[in-house]
Amino acid sequence: MKGLFIVFEGIDGGGKSTQIQMLSDFFDSKGYEVERHMEPTHAVIGSLLWDYMNSKSRSFDPETEALLFAADRIEHGKVIKESLVKGKVVISDRYKHSSLAYQGAAGVDVEWMQSLNKHALVPDLVILLDIDPDKSLERVSDRAKTVFEKKEYLKKVRAEYIRYAETGELVVVDALQSIEDVHEDILAHVKKLTE
Amino acid sequence: MKGLFIVFEGIDGGGKSTQIQMLSDFFDSKGYEVERHMEPTHAVIGSLLWDYMNSKSRSFDPETEALLFAADRIEHGKVIKESLVKGKVVISDRYKHSSLAYQGAAGVDVEWMQSLNKHALVPDLVILLDIDPDKSLERVSDRAKTVFEKKEYLKKVRAEYIRYAETGELVVVDALQSIEDVHEDILAHVKKLTE
Repeated sequence: MKGLFIVFEGIDGGGKSTQIQMLSDFFDSKGYEVERHMEPTHAVIGSLLWDYMNSKSRSFDPETEALLFAADRIEHGKVIKESLVKGKVVISDRYKHSSLAYQGAAGVDVEWMQSLNKHALVPDLVILLDIDPDKSLERVSDRAKTVFEKKEYLKKVRAEYIRYAETGELVVVDALQSIEDVHEDILAHVKKLTE
Repeated sequence: MKGLFIVFEGIDGGGKSTQIQMLSDFFDSKGYEVERHMEPTHAVIGSLLWDYMNSKSRSFDPETEALLFAADRIEHGKVIKESLVKGKVVISDRYKHSSLAYQGAAGVDVEWMQSLNKHALVPDLVILLDIDPDKSLERVSDRAKTVFEKKEYLKKVRAEYIRYAETGELVVVDALQSIEDVHEDILAHVKKLTE
């Protein structure tokens, strides 16, 4: 049996953590082994990115960030593949489209980033939990605020994400619905994979 | 006054350190401020690469290595630019063509690597100290041996380097000449820059 590789994307405050937990429970109840991943990873390159994102002095060019995320992703893909061949379901909180959207909104050439990521493992399904930054910022107002979380920037990020809905690389779920309705929408997309 | 950015390339054992010292002394005697750099750098991304290259378990894909080197290089370029605007001469032990040659010899698509490096600062002069690995390995036999230093691999690396001589991206100096003759050849190339 081949596993499944499912990615959740979207700006913070869209409910990714909650929905990942619910989808994980769903697969668990069906007897699948589920692994929860995230990007950046906690391997060596990802850890450098976390340290960097948590530091006050962010001095890397956005192009450098894009290269580091792509490097972390290649190594992440090898770990995911190992799980997929064992038939596991891997659910990742962020993956390639986070780079395309966040660094893209920071002005990095998106075609160039697609090229950086040409060796990245392709997910079976990418779910965008779409939310207006005006609403998402209400939800995360008590969390850490970084330069990545400014409203105008997040509006650009959201617009970048939406581009990939149009090319079919990801599916859009309205994150402003009730938690249960969002979960049902996600299950509808997941069931298309397993039918 | 604008500075100069000069790169030395080539496999180990070709005399890069000696020639960099001699060229540095030359510029020093002419009243230039000289900075000696290297890649990987000793900044955060370069340090990760040094740790990795010195570790026994090298598990990164060559594509991951190429992405990390390119990331280190973008940040390195910013440091170099700061020195160049002050009129300094920056001499770097390895730069972009090391990636192209070493990762290229490891099977990474060279066009893809050129794309990764499209934001890298372009040197004024890249000097390849060319030597047959049969000879260079005699010279470095008492130094650390790593997987990067196997003869057959180094022959491929040398062939990759030579490609860029043909496109004019670097100049080739025969490293088997006497130290003084190699230095004279280098000066002849350098003088074309400053004429």
